[in-house]
Amino acid sequence: MKGREAIKKGLALVNRSTIAMLGTNGAQGYPNIRAVIKMENEDLKRIWFTTNTSSKKVAQFKKNPKACVYFVDFDKWIGLMLIGTTEILQDPESKQRFWHEGFEKYYPLGVSDPDYSILRFTAQWGKYYHNLATTTFEI
Amino acid sequence: MKGREAIKKGLALVNRSTIAMLGTNGAQGYPNIRAVIKMENEDLKRIWFTTNTSSKKVAQFKKNPKACVYFVDFDKWIGLMLIGTTEILQDPESKQRFWHEGFEKYYPLGVSDPDYSILRFTAQWGKYYHNLATTTFEI
Repeated sequence: MKGREAIKKGLALVNRSTIAMLGTNGAQGYPNIRAVIKMENEDLKRIWFTTNTSSKKVAQFKKNPKACVYFVDFDKWIGLMLIGTTEILQDPESKQRFWHEGFEKYYPLGVSDPDYSILRFTAQWGKYYHNLATTTFEI
Repeated sequence: MKGREAIKKGLALVNRSTIAMLGTNGAQGYPNIRAVIKMENEDLKRIWFTTNTSSKKVAQFKKNPKACVYFVDFDKWIGLMLIGTTEILQDPESKQRFWHEGFEKYYPLGVSDPDYSILRFTAQWGKYYHNLATTTFEI
């Protein structure tokens, strides 16, 4: 598969996914993974997540912004790994932009809750997996 | 939730899962993630996967055995992160033990194919996530 086709198929997977796996560099040099809700994406280049400012992943990104975002379609056995860096956004505009009804469950003080943060992931390259074959591409 | 209950519920998740996310320390200090098929588990302590010896994850584990194995139930929004180390096994007994019908698709030379390896993950600790609460426990 050529890079352009892998990007197209990878983007289709991201567009239809609501959940991603987010990888960080955790304590003592171990990788850490957790499922996160994808809020928005801009092609494969940028992906936004919301999170508790007090969460482990925010502390980990403050120390080391290197990240992996992985999307998977279990039924079709398709995987997409994106590698890049993550910024922590706390400006009112970003917080307003991604606020959703029901978020009080996670952030009781509302949109200005200091425990509410946005993660903005920027991809550098990706790897698309399907049918035993992988295709690596720059983004 | 107490540690004992988190371990019990985490084990139930692992026992009913056939797929896990495997995290490694990838190139240039970035975490890497890919979906893998869980072959067997011994409680939460040990998990076995099969892989191509030529795969990136084998090269990564040779450099750095630190690993994360993550199980997720999207419907119930349950996650289990296990942190530990991974060994690469190539002895004939291990290769025979995990060989399955149809594996020729991945390892054309059969059970003795040098491109067929076993990964044995040993967990040190875990984190169980459910209903906005996490419980961390030693293993």
